[in-house]
Amino acid sequence: MPELITDPRDPRVADFHDLHAGDRRPGTERRSGPVVVEGVTAVERLLETGLQLRALYGVAGRLAALDIPAGVPAYEADKWVVSETIGFRLTRGVLASAERPVPPSLADVLVRSRRIAVLEGLNDHENIGSIGRSAVALGVDALLLDPSCADPYYRRSVRVSMGHLLTLPVVALEDWPGDLATVRAAGFTTVALTPDPGAVDLRSLDPVDHPRTALLLGAEGPGLTEGTMAAVDVRARIPMRSGVDSLGVAAAAAVAFAQLR
Amino acid sequence: MPELITDPRDPRVADFHDLHAGDRRPGTERRSGPVVVEGVTAVERLLETGLQLRALYGVAGRLAALDIPAGVPAYEADKWVVSETIGFRLTRGVLASAERPVPPSLADVLVRSRRIAVLEGLNDHENIGSIGRSAVALGVDALLLDPSCADPYYRRSVRVSMGHLLTLPVVALEDWPGDLATVRAAGFTTVALTPDPGAVDLRSLDPVDHPRTALLLGAEGPGLTEGTMAAVDVRARIPMRSGVDSLGVAAAAAVAFAQLR
Repeated sequence: MPELITDPRDPRVADFHDLHAGDRRPGTERRSGPVVVEGVTAVERLLETGLQLRALYGVAGRLAALDIPAGVPAYEADKWVVSETIGFRLTRGVLASAERPVPPSLADVLVRSRRIAVLEGLNDHENIGSIGRSAVALGVDALLLDPSCADPYYRRSVRVSMGHLLTLPVVALEDWPGDLATVRAAGFTTVALTPDPGAVDLRSLDPVDHPRTALLLGAEGPGLTEGTMAAVDVRARIPMRSGVDSLGVAAAAAVAFAQLR
Repeated sequence: MPELITDPRDPRVADFHDLHAGDRRPGTERRSGPVVVEGVTAVERLLETGLQLRALYGVAGRLAALDIPAGVPAYEADKWVVSETIGFRLTRGVLASAERPVPPSLADVLVRSRRIAVLEGLNDHENIGSIGRSAVALGVDALLLDPSCADPYYRRSVRVSMGHLLTLPVVALEDWPGDLATVRAAGFTTVALTPDPGAVDLRSLDPVDHPRTALLLGAEGPGLTEGTMAAVDVRARIPMRSGVDSLGVAAAAAVAFAQLR
């Protein structure tokens, strides 16, 4: 049975205090602290990942919809108490916190993958979440993030991914763009996505000819850096209506993932 | 020269009052009221559309970056005054308001288009904005919206589309799904996108065989209604990794638009 919380500041629900405050909890390092997941569907997905759960917190009806594993602390409260804890109005009824995934090594990920996406400079949490969801749906096996990307395990990334990000191997690269040489040495064709009209049509890259492909995506606006562009095997574009410079990066990623299957 | 605003409640900037309050301004009908556009890039795109401008409002630096047409009232204020007017912290520096586009007739749009997207039940403004942006980039000529869709000209839709939605013909259908018969009578193959594994692979639809295609997209979760599914020519799916039920609707739209080019 869930324990009842009546004080929004109760230390038992400390993982959920002031979630509106940004992607870093006070007193924690960047890319550290628990993963917070919102909503029944995403929490159910979290429960399937085997990640170590820390706590569940929500309204009675939504907690009752979950198959809560033994030993996981569950806390129930009135909607307004939960809203006061998290710092914004609760709309999804239930939250969970879990330990972060243990990051796999780059070498392990490269051995096990055929399609990977490499993100450079993506500082928008929603875009990372959307790309993670599309990656899982469209057969991309892993995400690699350069050191300037936002935290993929921040609450808003996980929410937009509907929890799918938690099922995907993610590697935060430390040597950038140096690690690209490791990716190429593992047999991957590195493909930079660019709106440049001089790049090759992405549809001309036959997946059969490139059994291992790493698709590189840059942030909207700046795109991939010159150093990265210079380090890849192929520069490819999605054909677009003339005069429209670029799709959103999450839409472009989905189109490219579907193309490279 | 822009006029200086020092009172956030100044009636000259009434178009921008309390923008956080939702998609309908107090005292206005649904899908009425001015279009509000944020940020230099999207405002520049607005200026190119020929829509009738009502006002510009922002900080001096951002207003100076715009080529403001003669006769358009422009108002300058301190960042915090603008923030107080709009009801949230100004991050994009400048806003514009304009009259809504005069809606084209369904018959006109059908005559002029080869690819259209038809949205049913899409009540998420960001998804409509993202779909509009992808539509423009990937050669979709118009959007048709069933009566239950959210307002495509609400601020957040326009923002996510980077202003591209304002360049796209949009028809709010009144007879649904009855208007689908009109679409079919105009020579369009109607294609419902569904995650159903029994549907045909979208890649098997050769654009050459279907010079006019209407792609139907439903909301995430419920998808297209049974009545709509029964009224279309083809039910098609994007091949996905087994066990993953669905891409996000905006990502699915982008993949399908690219496929149907």
